[in-house]
Amino acid sequence: MGKSLTRKIIESHYVSGSMIPGEEVFLYIDQTLTHDINAVMTYLAFEAIGLDRVRTECSVSYLDHNLLYVDHKTPDDHIYLQSAARRYGVYVSRPGNGICHAVHVARFGAPGKISMGGDSHTPHGGAIGMLCIGVGGMDVATAMTGVPMRLKMPRVVNVVLHGRLRPGVNAKEIILEMLRRVTIKGGLGNVYEYTGDGAAALEVPERATITNMGAEMGATTSIFPSDDAVRRFLRAQGRETDYRELLPDENAEYDEQIVINLDQLEPLAACPHQPDNVKPLREVEKKPVQQVFIGSCTNTSYADVAKAALVLQGRHVNETVSCTCAIASRQTYKALMHDGYIDMLMDAGLRMLEIACGPCCAIGQTPATEGIAVRTSNRNFKGRAGNPNAKIYLVSPESAAATAVMGTFASAEDILGANVAKLAGIREPEGYDQNDNMLIAPLPEEEAAQVEIVRGPNIRPLPVPEVPEQELHVPVSLKAGDNVSTDDITPASAEFSSMRSNIPMMSKFCYHRYDPEFAERAKAMGRSIIVGGENYGQGSSREHAAINPMYLGVKCVIAKSIARIHKGNLVNHGIIPMLFEDSADYERICQEDILEIHHLLDQIPEKRVIVHDVTQGFDFTVRLDLSENEIEVVLSGGQLRFLKKQLDGQKHTEAQKEKAQKEKA
Amino acid sequence: MGKSLTRKIIESHYVSGSMIPGEEVFLYIDQTLTHDINAVMTYLAFEAIGLDRVRTECSVSYLDHNLLYVDHKTPDDHIYLQSAARRYGVYVSRPGNGICHAVHVARFGAPGKISMGGDSHTPHGGAIGMLCIGVGGMDVATAMTGVPMRLKMPRVVNVVLHGRLRPGVNAKEIILEMLRRVTIKGGLGNVYEYTGDGAAALEVPERATITNMGAEMGATTSIFPSDDAVRRFLRAQGRETDYRELLPDENAEYDEQIVINLDQLEPLAACPHQPDNVKPLREVEKKPVQQVFIGSCTNTSYADVAKAALVLQGRHVNETVSCTCAIASRQTYKALMHDGYIDMLMDAGLRMLEIACGPCCAIGQTPATEGIAVRTSNRNFKGRAGNPNAKIYLVSPESAAATAVMGTFASAEDILGANVAKLAGIREPEGYDQNDNMLIAPLPEEEAAQVEIVRGPNIRPLPVPEVPEQELHVPVSLKAGDNVSTDDITPASAEFSSMRSNIPMMSKFCYHRYDPEFAERAKAMGRSIIVGGENYGQGSSREHAAINPMYLGVKCVIAKSIARIHKGNLVNHGIIPMLFEDSADYERICQEDILEIHHLLDQIPEKRVIVHDVTQGFDFTVRLDLSENEIEVVLSGGQLRFLKKQLDGQKHTEAQKEKAQKEKA
Repeated sequence: MGKSLTRKIIESHYVSGSMIPGEEVFLYIDQTLTHDINAVMTYLAFEAIGLDRVRTECSVSYLDHNLLYVDHKTPDDHIYLQSAARRYGVYVSRPGNGICHAVHVARFGAPGKISMGGDSHTPHGGAIGMLCIGVGGMDVATAMTGVPMRLKMPRVVNVVLHGRLRPGVNAKEIILEMLRRVTIKGGLGNVYEYTGDGAAALEVPERATITNMGAEMGATTSIFPSDDAVRRFLRAQGRETDYRELLPDENAEYDEQIVINLDQLEPLAACPHQPDNVKPLREVEKKPVQQVFIGSCTNTSYADVAKAALVLQGRHVNETVSCTCAIASRQTYKALMHDGYIDMLMDAGLRMLEIACGPCCAIGQTPATEGIAVRTSNRNFKGRAGNPNAKIYLVSPESAAATAVMGTFASAEDILGANVAKLAGIREPEGYDQNDNMLIAPLPEEEAAQVEIVRGPNIRPLPVPEVPEQELHVPVSLKAGDNVSTDDITPASAEFSSMRSNIPMMSKFCYHRYDPEFAERAKAMGRSIIVGGENYGQGSSREHAAINPMYLGVKCVIAKSIARIHKGNLVNHGIIPMLFEDSADYERICQEDILEIHHLLDQIPEKRVIVHDVTQGFDFTVRLDLSENEIEVVLSGGQLRFLKKQLDGQKHTEAQKEKAQKEKA
Repeated sequence: MGKSLTRKIIESHYVSGSMIPGEEVFLYIDQTLTHDINAVMTYLAFEAIGLDRVRTECSVSYLDHNLLYVDHKTPDDHIYLQSAARRYGVYVSRPGNGICHAVHVARFGAPGKISMGGDSHTPHGGAIGMLCIGVGGMDVATAMTGVPMRLKMPRVVNVVLHGRLRPGVNAKEIILEMLRRVTIKGGLGNVYEYTGDGAAALEVPERATITNMGAEMGATTSIFPSDDAVRRFLRAQGRETDYRELLPDENAEYDEQIVINLDQLEPLAACPHQPDNVKPLREVEKKPVQQVFIGSCTNTSYADVAKAALVLQGRHVNETVSCTCAIASRQTYKALMHDGYIDMLMDAGLRMLEIACGPCCAIGQTPATEGIAVRTSNRNFKGRAGNPNAKIYLVSPESAAATAVMGTFASAEDILGANVAKLAGIREPEGYDQNDNMLIAPLPEEEAAQVEIVRGPNIRPLPVPEVPEQELHVPVSLKAGDNVSTDDITPASAEFSSMRSNIPMMSKFCYHRYDPEFAERAKAMGRSIIVGGENYGQGSSREHAAINPMYLGVKCVIAKSIARIHKGNLVNHGIIPMLFEDSADYERICQEDILEIHHLLDQIPEKRVIVHDVTQGFDFTVRLDLSENEIEVVLSGGQLRFLKKQLDGQKHTEAQKEKAQKEKA
């Protein structure tokens, strides 16, 4: 049997380990990316590691998420990040240049590369045949050191797309259909590799909508072949030389196959409060919509916005709707402006926000009380828009525009009728503006060494976890339900995201909306365990969802299942992720029960641990779904301690070699 | 002697009173305007008054200041304001249409009219020969009832402008030069009427920069004649029919004259922390600038931004500078976009913010810690940008653009050299986009009566002050210094401005930055007096600077001098404004002293009150600089009580008349 594209890329970056799905493989990483609201901890970690310069092909620090600057904290963070980038040889993409994923695929990405990004939507870059993996910030710091990165070897699922999308139906519908079928936790451990005549017909930004939001299935990543569509895209970016054809073998072996007939798709909506709660748009109850947001990395390509503009052309935003639009990059904005689409949007009364992530992660544009928000972004968790009593529906830009006009859920066809056919004519431009003056290139090494890193008063040191001990006798500080998201653990929003450089401050708001008393309780308990249900820690890659509980003394999370990136973050930050061997045990434990583990350090390498519930008086078993490498990290007390040991070992070996060579000479 | 333009407009709106400067005159008001962060209290007051519909020619509710929506409060406010406008026959200018002053002068203003606006920069409209007065929200509510409004008859100062501005020198320099000469309190009681060949040569938006920022001198308002420049402007707005020539008589009588030779002006800067701390830009120490903001009602006309763009053309924003731009209206944005200037700005790396006031009043774009911010807006009070340790410099758009490029203070000429001459070629367009679909027109009366007003959970009732009593025996809750601004008393910012609909919440932050313990202290005292220095309550028109202290039990403010709008707000909200007869007494009083006033109600009509400082053991005299009408308001316990009495009286008289007529028939 032939090889999948995923396997080919993994093989070409293979260092060690096993390529059997579920086992651990170590890979070289070509590129990394970080963004402002997660990255301060990443660069603090890189500083703590002590290397003089990043050891990747290219690392980029994007300033794109929190551009509101509601107080001094975020501009201080941006100044820190810019100075750290200058110091360590990292590109900076300045505020206003665009959202990390949109800019990265346009200006840095290349087929066949592997990137790791400190953002769960890093798989965006899979649109050009790149293997792009979202991880926590500590993993990005690790990747920047050039050490091979561990990955659980994925299952590869082939998604065969047949036919063509009808006008008024967007690539968003493909990923919503995937979410409907696969669910928000069904993608765990998988890479989704898209092929078929329907895939070939999609342009790169359409593919990016799909790979980007593949994150919502819990997948490792998603990828499209590097084919003519990728060549056209890179040519339009003035980067055809970065193109290389990269396809799966014709007889490639896959672990599973899914087939979608694009002709049969109709406008869909992910209804509150999970991205897999997908319904046909026409079946959504026609309540008044308070807010429409056309924006985010997921769905504001040139063609996306142009189509929305054509729906709005000659019409105007309903008086009852607040409709905003944030284009994903300066490049896209300029193309839309030159072709008259920004005019159409503004004429229709859309509010053009700054080029940024913004409202997608609750940084501005919070809906009104009990407001129904219709958004083109990727997540609709309760509270994701900054207001837990709002209801978020995820739709395509065409549907969002139609909804803005009607004041309630509507599709492009509802507005345009047979004229919806004109949307089919919209294609990406053949050339994009290639002005890179908002990218700051790395300094030469000697110059970089002189750079002083600037730290505002809110930037506090990265807390380092304790090394685990043999005996644990601690209470349960929280018993959480299913599908707890990282938004539940550490909210985004202009207010909270600006606290992310200050763990002592931010940890006070840990689980703030989910259980306002958690932080005080955990702190009072000193050391504790969190018990969770299915899909614990889904959503964003923010490692604060691990760091804050760690800072509050949480030693283990015991859950029915744990989302991939969050599990990695727990390991990195010294919290042991444990899985119920028998899910039924979850029911028997109560919040504030005392749990006891004996000989923990001896049990960890066995990957099975016996836990005694002192309060209820029973024992239960938990599994550690951890690789050998992760076990070592856990036993070391987190990734920073582990990595420093490893790099010190390297230095030691190098020094010994040098000494030996000298002696020889 | 002939008449000034100001006198002509006052005469044409005269109802009663005296036209001797300093005395009280009552005038008909043609138009009112409100904006989102001040207006909820205004419409709550209008509701409380109990009329069915506004009784002005035109009243407009602008949603323009706080468009960040960092939580549910502001969108809830906007929904309230929109529903109140529908209910009472008020226009709404939706978010994204533009800043109130820019839109009002363009779409509603007309020469010879009088407008009152709940914003201190309402005098903007003086650019087209309109008499525009900034007042507190309760005054706007009063004006909306159609009752004649009291005004202290102003002194009229003639400012004669000779010559022409050199290229690279902006109308901003004229008003900064005025501020340098007149100072921030020198304008009290004055109208500044601009004439001369230099005035005639200025376009309407240039005049608006001057009249707008005349507020910083504490003036009643500023005005330019309605001449050919006004005709051209109104023609470009498709409103030439609203034009009428309106000039001062050739031999007009003025109370004072100021002459400025425009040819001699050079680029200036208002340095921290007062707008009258004006220096030549070239003399400002060349420290690194962290932030540049090109925006606000004051200085983002088409020509302003186009000139800034020409400075930036082919250059780019210094790596160390965060440079943002918020255009004042959709109309202006579109004109700039069509002529390629938005391209130039974006190519240079400026961040284009939403069309809104935003950063000018600390709603976003807070400078970094200790950051130097260079802004084209109108105020540079400490903390005005959201960060009390930042330093704000006010300059023209041309200088701001040059500074963004250089990374430190620079003028257009520093960048362009002799090419600065090309800036002289930039003129306002001959036609503007006249799409008014972001204005919602008032509903017909019957339909309006059916509208239900929507109140979010943060919208709390307007507190009504107590009626004053004969005997007062209370402590001094605060002894403040000179030039306390309304920003000191009730900060703007995304966070605080969204609290303005909820006095119980907001009052907790009264004087938050100036004296963090004030609110607790005043509340604990129950009832108290504030003692202030010169120019107490300068700056914005926000009546929260009166309502919050009133809510905390403050009964009087005794100061050396009190800014005009704030004095009106104190009267309206039941705090008695008192002036030291002998300023030296200020020194003798200490915070927490007990002050005693006997027979207060008897003394008030005498406009002189004896105060006994129990703690220090001395008496001192205060003056009440109040008109007869204001005395009545004070004795009634604020404007709401007074106005209701007045309107009830009217109703009573009408009912009696009706009864008499019936009996007659």
